[in-house]
Amino acid sequence: MNYVDYLQLKNLLSCQQMESERLAKPAHDEMLFIIVHQVYELWFKQILFEVDSVMEIFEKERVNEESLGLVAHRLQRVVTIQKHIVDQIAVLETMTPLDFLEFRDLLVPASGFQSFQFRLLETKLGLRSRDRVSFAGKTLEKAPPPEEESKSLFVLIDRWLSRTPFLKMRDFDFLINYKVCVDKMLLRDKGLIEGNPSLSEDGKQRQLAALEVTRHNFEALFDRNIYDELLKSGERRMSYDAALASLLIFLYRDRPIFQQPFHVLTALVDMDEWFTTWRYRHSLMVHRMIGTKIGTGGSSGHDYLKRSADQHKVFTDLFDLSTFLIPRSQLPSLPKELQRKMDFIYSSEEERAS
Amino acid sequence: MNYVDYLQLKNLLSCQQMESERLAKPAHDEMLFIIVHQVYELWFKQILFEVDSVMEIFEKERVNEESLGLVAHRLQRVVTIQKHIVDQIAVLETMTPLDFLEFRDLLVPASGFQSFQFRLLETKLGLRSRDRVSFAGKTLEKAPPPEEESKSLFVLIDRWLSRTPFLKMRDFDFLINYKVCVDKMLLRDKGLIEGNPSLSEDGKQRQLAALEVTRHNFEALFDRNIYDELLKSGERRMSYDAALASLLIFLYRDRPIFQQPFHVLTALVDMDEWFTTWRYRHSLMVHRMIGTKIGTGGSSGHDYLKRSADQHKVFTDLFDLSTFLIPRSQLPSLPKELQRKMDFIYSSEEERAS
Amino acid sequence: MNYVDYLQLKNLLSCQQMESERLAKPAHDEMLFIIVHQVYELWFKQILFEVDSVMEIFEKERVNEESLGLVAHRLQRVVTIQKHIVDQIAVLETMTPLDFLEFRDLLVPASGFQSFQFRLLETKLGLRSRDRVSFAGKTLEKAPPPEEESKSLFVLIDRWLSRTPFLKMRDFDFLINYKVCVDKMLLRDKGLIEGNPSLSEDGKQRQLAALEVTRHNFEALFDRNIYDELLKSGERRMSYDAALASLLIFLYRDRPIFQQPFHVLTALVDMDEWFTTWRYRHSLMVHRMIGTKIGTGGSSGHDYLKRSADQHKVFTDLFDLSTFLIPRSQLPSLPKELQRKMDFIYSSEEERAS
Amino acid sequence: MNYVDYLQLKNLLSCQQMESERLAKPAHDEMLFIIVHQVYELWFKQILFEVDSVMEIFEKERVNEESLGLVAHRLQRVVTIQKHIVDQIAVLETMTPLDFLEFRDLLVPASGFQSFQFRLLETKLGLRSRDRVSFAGKTLEKAPPPEEESKSLFVLIDRWLSRTPFLKMRDFDFLINYKVCVDKMLLRDKGLIEGNPSLSEDGKQRQLAALEVTRHNFEALFDRNIYDELLKSGERRMSYDAALASLLIFLYRDRPIFQQPFHVLTALVDMDEWFTTWRYRHSLMVHRMIGTKIGTGGSSGHDYLKRSADQHKVFTDLFDLSTFLIPRSQLPSLPKELQRKMDFIYSSEEERAS
Repeated sequence: MNYVDYLQLKNLLSCQQMESERLAKPAHDEMLFIIVHQVYELWFKQILFEVDSVMEIFEKERVNEESLGLVAHRLQRVVTIQKHIVDQIAVLETMTPLDFLEFRDLLVPASGFQSFQFRLLETKLGLRSRDRVSFAGKTLEKAPPPEEESKSLFVLIDRWLSRTPFLKMRDFDFLINYKVCVDKMLLRDKGLIEGNPSLSEDGKQRQLAALEVTRHNFEALFDRNIYDELLKSGERRMSYDAALASLLIFLYRDRPIFQQPFHVLTALVDMDEWFTTWRYRHSLMVHRMIGTKIGTGGSSGHDYLKRSADQHKVFTDLFDLSTFLIPRSQLPSLPKELQRKMDFIYSSEEERAS
Repeated sequence: MNYVDYLQLKNLLSCQQMESERLAKPAHDEMLFIIVHQVYELWFKQILFEVDSVMEIFEKERVNEESLGLVAHRLQRVVTIQKHIVDQIAVLETMTPLDFLEFRDLLVPASGFQSFQFRLLETKLGLRSRDRVSFAGKTLEKAPPPEEESKSLFVLIDRWLSRTPFLKMRDFDFLINYKVCVDKMLLRDKGLIEGNPSLSEDGKQRQLAALEVTRHNFEALFDRNIYDELLKSGERRMSYDAALASLLIFLYRDRPIFQQPFHVLTALVDMDEWFTTWRYRHSLMVHRMIGTKIGTGGSSGHDYLKRSADQHKVFTDLFDLSTFLIPRSQLPSLPKELQRKMDFIYSSEEERAS
Repeated sequence: MNYVDYLQLKNLLSCQQMESERLAKPAHDEMLFIIVHQVYELWFKQILFEVDSVMEIFEKERVNEESLGLVAHRLQRVVTIQKHIVDQIAVLETMTPLDFLEFRDLLVPASGFQSFQFRLLETKLGLRSRDRVSFAGKTLEKAPPPEEESKSLFVLIDRWLSRTPFLKMRDFDFLINYKVCVDKMLLRDKGLIEGNPSLSEDGKQRQLAALEVTRHNFEALFDRNIYDELLKSGERRMSYDAALASLLIFLYRDRPIFQQPFHVLTALVDMDEWFTTWRYRHSLMVHRMIGTKIGTGGSSGHDYLKRSADQHKVFTDLFDLSTFLIPRSQLPSLPKELQRKMDFIYSSEEERAS
Repeated sequence: MNYVDYLQLKNLLSCQQMESERLAKPAHDEMLFIIVHQVYELWFKQILFEVDSVMEIFEKERVNEESLGLVAHRLQRVVTIQKHIVDQIAVLETMTPLDFLEFRDLLVPASGFQSFQFRLLETKLGLRSRDRVSFAGKTLEKAPPPEEESKSLFVLIDRWLSRTPFLKMRDFDFLINYKVCVDKMLLRDKGLIEGNPSLSEDGKQRQLAALEVTRHNFEALFDRNIYDELLKSGERRMSYDAALASLLIFLYRDRPIFQQPFHVLTALVDMDEWFTTWRYRHSLMVHRMIGTKIGTGGSSGHDYLKRSADQHKVFTDLFDLSTFLIPRSQLPSLPKELQRKMDFIYSSEEERAS
């Protein structure tokens, strides 16, 4: 075994064929262009490898607690790679627009939008065809097959969260208890506004109106029917039970049994944030590189990327959940017995012993 | 002189007064919140210091070539700081939404949007009141005074560029020569499309239509009247002469006399790109931190930031200029005498000697 | 409450008093120099704040499992800040040596080595006076008081690890079981070397010698007396029990009860790695900034920093532990009952139910 | 032309053959290990491509001023890539030591030290065989051929610098003028020390001794014979003339003709700094990954890397030069005629016209 053979370097390092050189008009920066994109594809392969391994774990009927540490670790690795490839845009930006022009025409109509791996990745995470920004008036060719959509990470995570047994334990109904606390909080806030002597009448009315909006938002959380409306209208995507389970995990993340699930959810939010950032930074780069040159379909590359940046987010529901958090000090405290269940056997035995 | 006194550390390190502690409800993460924002303000001060020093140079009637190296260097320093403070968002994101909630209410209505330094910075770069995204239906209070707008970096750079003598030399009119090359290029492209046997009739028509759009775009470059229309409609902001000068610099950046101006323009594009990135990353962070809580004015913080990300860009014209570049090989070659003028005296004398 | 008052910006932004300006010889880059160092001190304050809060948790007789998530989270925050301040060196490096020279003499003898917060931080982590690289032939003045050393994070972590009950359970002695596996592995390796037909006699002897070194290393792990020798000679610092506990955690990190302790240990290694990196990068920066100018004590700043980079590492034992890991497939499997104890009560009950 | 064929993705993405999978003992993290190293090799190829193109420029008898902008730009690109691959270590560090152990034995004796491209790169920059840290008592096999050494970037840069005509112009001898200023500065410093009432006699003596060391250092700069001694002893490597030229460029970098040479020298220092950082960070990573396992030759991987970090630096002379800078205010001012020669023809003509 040696390094060169193991990494198949001979093969790997022969994949850089400059088109400009083939046509005897060598453009120095084409090498950078090729290598930057090849490196991207290698990282996409790695991310797909990690995401696949995570999906395999969630495909099981029962996800054991041990695997969750592994899941969190692998998703965090994906995030580390994502940060790295956002940074990589700086490398490509050492190519100036004029230098790009030296070979740009030779590549037409090849384009980074044709990266099958990246589109596959978006689909695997949970992006559906209908969520996609349409580019130049039509859907992208060679999209991953639709059957991928029904078994995406989003779907698997939703299913896993929905199974959480802690939402309704014999002696504790989370939702009922949470509603009591929220109502108390809103009432208290109302009192504070009404009794605030330094507020003008106008200011008072505006703040009370805002409070009303907040109360209205919470209703969708407490009433499955209202939530279903939001699902239908597309304002929500996550199932009702999964949303509640996520909330529970965010609120009680310190309980030993929720620590890993909390890391998993956080990593999903991170992943979404970094892919969004990647698409956005990319759009800025394309803008400076080719200006506003409008494509045949009436749309420009950087416009497409800018719009997709946010619209291709998958776990938006998890971002939105922050709307429904209430301060720890006002949280319903969990019954002793429930707390015990969420702890380690060893800790419990030790406690009894002492 | 000692380190502690020199840096006024006693004073500096006593500026962190946690509100939650003052109210006897200590929230651990408030310290991070305070320090992150204080560090931001220190960097803003530094950036303002650099931008001011650069503006001072451009305020002179004649900017000597020596200072341009300094200008490029200081703007590049600003970019280095900008990259660094985008990265700093990761530090604040170690605070979870729930932890923020522990002290969030104590700060109302204080908000990062009240950073006077940042707004001053945007204004100094060239953002005008009317360009600003309106937040919650009204303009932000305490905006920098309007007289700042008339002497912004944008204005100064525009004036400096407009003075470039190289646009019209006795024996060389850049624009006329450039138009010839562009026309030749467009004609050649037309021929290639029409003669392409592998294109369907439909495809041919679409490509020809796109070419027509390109030709139309170029017209605004070659006809001051059309350009003026774009200025009026707000599609362009840079003056006609400044735009041509920028194009000249981008195209002939290798000429010794254009090397520093090219670095200056590139740094301006970089600055815009990084402030845009900063606002966008910020909007994602706010979204995950407080969800979609809608403010009293009917707008949410992350929405404002997301919209301002792009809209507060100042040097968009420089991004757009890439649309008008043509490959080096098709550029009009500069007359010998003009080339000589752009070179160093020493080089010229040496050449003559040899 | 408003932003300016809350962050004490008036005060904060008045702490930048350029010495060169006071002496009427304004040196532009002094502002950068001041702000970069002030930002460092703010981050040091934040890191100290986090480390203090973590030490408070470990000072308790019993560290409950819930707090470990918090500990890991806060140490990881420290690591995030560390990465950020290593990156910050790039900002200072936009100052050239010649620009530094404009005001360097005005600061003498003030020096970054006088940062009390940084030295306090090193001491709190566990650096002892005697571990410190002596600078210019003498110890640094104003070192933190020695009593800090006896209650450092290192000491607290060591004590916490030593209390781990899992090293010796009624029905499982980790060390005995581990030794069996290691012996088996070494024997197998010996066989492989001796039976390898492609090895020359010479190569065989060299590999066998190396194997002997490995066996010898392991002895210190299996024999408390040998280990004590290493403690005395300074080759090890962590107590025997703490070292074994760390090994246990590294090896069985997937067990739910070890997941957080594993994150805590990993964060400690990360912290050490990043402070080491910071000191090293710093030494390179000082070298390019002031060359090899030798101080009055016969030592130069960058030399001191380079030597301290590695020598001021605190948790070296945790780095070294990798020497003693064996592959998962060859690990002693834990008895069922022990595995159960390491799991959640809920999981166990659910399993019984199914 | 399409994206997949252009980037040869089929081929590229088939180069990841996990050894652990071939042997039916799949180790998940081997994929990461392979891809991280392949990405490194792709970047090395790119860096070599840039360095080669720069060397080609310097191989010419006369380097025209236009190319210097290009040289600076390409070297800065290399630095951008270097920063990026230092950051990439974070990706590999998401692999834990235990996970590495799952497949580590399968790779023996393949090792990153066998990267031919990296060694070639070091040689091309200017590292000579005798400068290399010997690993395990012997030189590394497959080192690049010695003829590479005689035409390294170091050699080419040295030759280019030595040709600088500005060291000795008809009417200005830089060295003589510089010596006058340095002597004046040293004398003034001596006076300040001797007349300082707040200094103890002891302190005075120590400071005067330090000043003597400084004077001694400068002697090597002013006396070619002393310098030659340092060359022989290996304390210096750059030729005398090249060292003086570098000093000149560092001191008068604002002169238009020196702006690009200054950027070139700065980029060389940056490159050295980042390769040094890369090797050092690498050594820390290896330490945490495999501990102190001692190789057959009596040396461990992380030791080798740590020692090579600094020792493989190539342009140390440029770092050391900062020792000899004096403040701008005390610099000999260049004669008018010389200044003119360093300026653009256009500027000069314009000045005459006004």
